[in-house]
Amino acid sequence: MLKLLHFPLCPYSRKVRLALAEKELEVAAEAIEPWLYRDDLKTGNPAGEVPILEDRSRVICDSNAIVEYLEETQRGHSLLGKESSQRAETRRLIAWFDKKFVHEVTDLIWREKLIKRLRDKATPDSAAVRRGLANIHDHLDYIGHLFDQNHWLAGEQLTLADLTAAAQFSVLDYLGDVPWDKHPAAKLWYAKIKSRPSFRPLLADRLPSIRPVTYYDDLDF
Amino acid sequence: MLKLLHFPLCPYSRKVRLALAEKELEVAAEAIEPWLYRDDLKTGNPAGEVPILEDRSRVICDSNAIVEYLEETQRGHSLLGKESSQRAETRRLIAWFDKKFVHEVTDLIWREKLIKRLRDKATPDSAAVRRGLANIHDHLDYIGHLFDQNHWLAGEQLTLADLTAAAQFSVLDYLGDVPWDKHPAAKLWYAKIKSRPSFRPLLADRLPSIRPVTYYDDLDF
Repeated sequence: MLKLLHFPLCPYSRKVRLALAEKELEVAAEAIEPWLYRDDLKTGNPAGEVPILEDRSRVICDSNAIVEYLEETQRGHSLLGKESSQRAETRRLIAWFDKKFVHEVTDLIWREKLIKRLRDKATPDSAAVRRGLANIHDHLDYIGHLFDQNHWLAGEQLTLADLTAAAQFSVLDYLGDVPWDKHPAAKLWYAKIKSRPSFRPLLADRLPSIRPVTYYDDLDF
Repeated sequence: MLKLLHFPLCPYSRKVRLALAEKELEVAAEAIEPWLYRDDLKTGNPAGEVPILEDRSRVICDSNAIVEYLEETQRGHSLLGKESSQRAETRRLIAWFDKKFVHEVTDLIWREKLIKRLRDKATPDSAAVRRGLANIHDHLDYIGHLFDQNHWLAGEQLTLADLTAAAQFSVLDYLGDVPWDKHPAAKLWYAKIKSRPSFRPLLADRLPSIRPVTYYDDLDF
């Protein structure tokens, strides 16, 4: 059976959990706070980070390497898409949310408010958080624009583009930092993906020291 | 024929140029300063960034989407590797250099010294540059460690892991900011990849306003 080491409120871990669930793969998932086990983690992943997937004796690190590995080795329908141009569009949007969005939003809000507090026992840089909250609007508009054109972000089918974006937004939503009401089309997209069975375990995640906003697990938010 | 829009001193553009050359694919390459054409670029790539590859009517954006697309659609040997576990190792290292290294080194040196000057006509944040120069040593040690174990970074064959790392180091090397002499194993690796025919066009790149260090195109640096 597959084994996954993850941090419940890590967007990259969540992308992998969603991909495993959408592919209906059984996995033994172990939740950890990675900074408590950094040296141990380095034997599996020299970067000392989660998610880490174990498939028998193979150890796969980095969320994109993991999802590409699942695409190559596991049965079930593709979460990248069938045609090369479709797969390129999915990968373009994965990069958008894992790099551009992380740089402009997630690192400024989630890393400041959640990781700094849990790992460093430090207070967030409020100027950084404000920049993240200002930047999020353009990305919500872009999601609305894509969703207005298609059934899902990268086309007519759910793909890893949706899972990657939803994983990022879900950790910000835990903190109550996504202004859904100002972006109705993006809200419709998130409501659609939030109601999928693959999303349920994420909505049950709770950190002992930081509670989610009241509507975090509400499907009619 | 394939068409590539790129910025000569962009590490992501360079990764794609190296991959195209290693695959011996003909390409019509057009060099631009992307910030001068940001609105035009957005019609092809909503992120307004290069590299952008055109394959007949298809437009592929993001360096990883492009190299995966080339793997899927073009003939020639694979730059990811044949076996799934090899491909996972290549992709782990691509992520290492495109995300971790960029965050800890490239963004602090190259973005500060080169992009800020060209695009913003601004001076670099010298504290950021110092942090980048301090961080680079661990990465050079890691390259030396991988190279001591193998012929190339991800194993016995040249892969996209080497091309990605070399693309990142090459833009720092243009600025003279890689302390090769303190890391002899990493220097051997770089000398090996620098002498490949695929690297020659990169060594001929010159910015009008920023000259490279004297040994930039020297194969016996």
